[in-house]
Amino acid sequence: MIARVHVTLKQGVLDPQGKAIANSLKSLGFSGIAGVRQGKYIELELEDADPEIARAAVEDMCQRLLANTVIEDYTIELDG
Amino acid sequence: MIARVHVTLKQGVLDPQGKAIANSLKSLGFSGIAGVRQGKYIELELEDADPEIARAAVEDMCQRLLANTVIEDYTIELDG
Repeated sequence: MIARVHVTLKQGVLDPQGKAIANSLKSLGFSGIAGVRQGKYIELELEDADPEIARAAVEDMCQRLLANTVIEDYTIELDG
Repeated sequence: MIARVHVTLKQGVLDPQGKAIANSLKSLGFSGIAGVRQGKYIELELEDADPEIARAAVEDMCQRLLANTVIEDYTIELDG
């Protein structure tokens, strides 16, 4: 089973990396960019086949390691 | 319009960051992890409303700045 985790900064938290990307894109000549946010994408390959157990485990992994829940949100998608 | 870009390492390219996450998860007591890959997730807010123009622009951004196409793949999703 594959678990896809997105870790993104919470709304309102400054994102200097996203800002840097936006500035670079502008200096390359791209226009019409209203905003850029950068996050992390983590793909976990799990041996567990039970979606409920897998989701609980990944939730726990996010809380304890993958995300800093003070400033970051995370979403989990499970895939067959 | 929101464009969501995932930049991931190509198959076969070593992923030390993913490896480090896998090791940390194991040392926290999580078992049953067959593999971890880490990528980047970039959310672009575009003023362009035409999906075709927007997709072409984001494709160009990926080629020129967002991804290193020698070792990375990217996927683009557009959202109304």
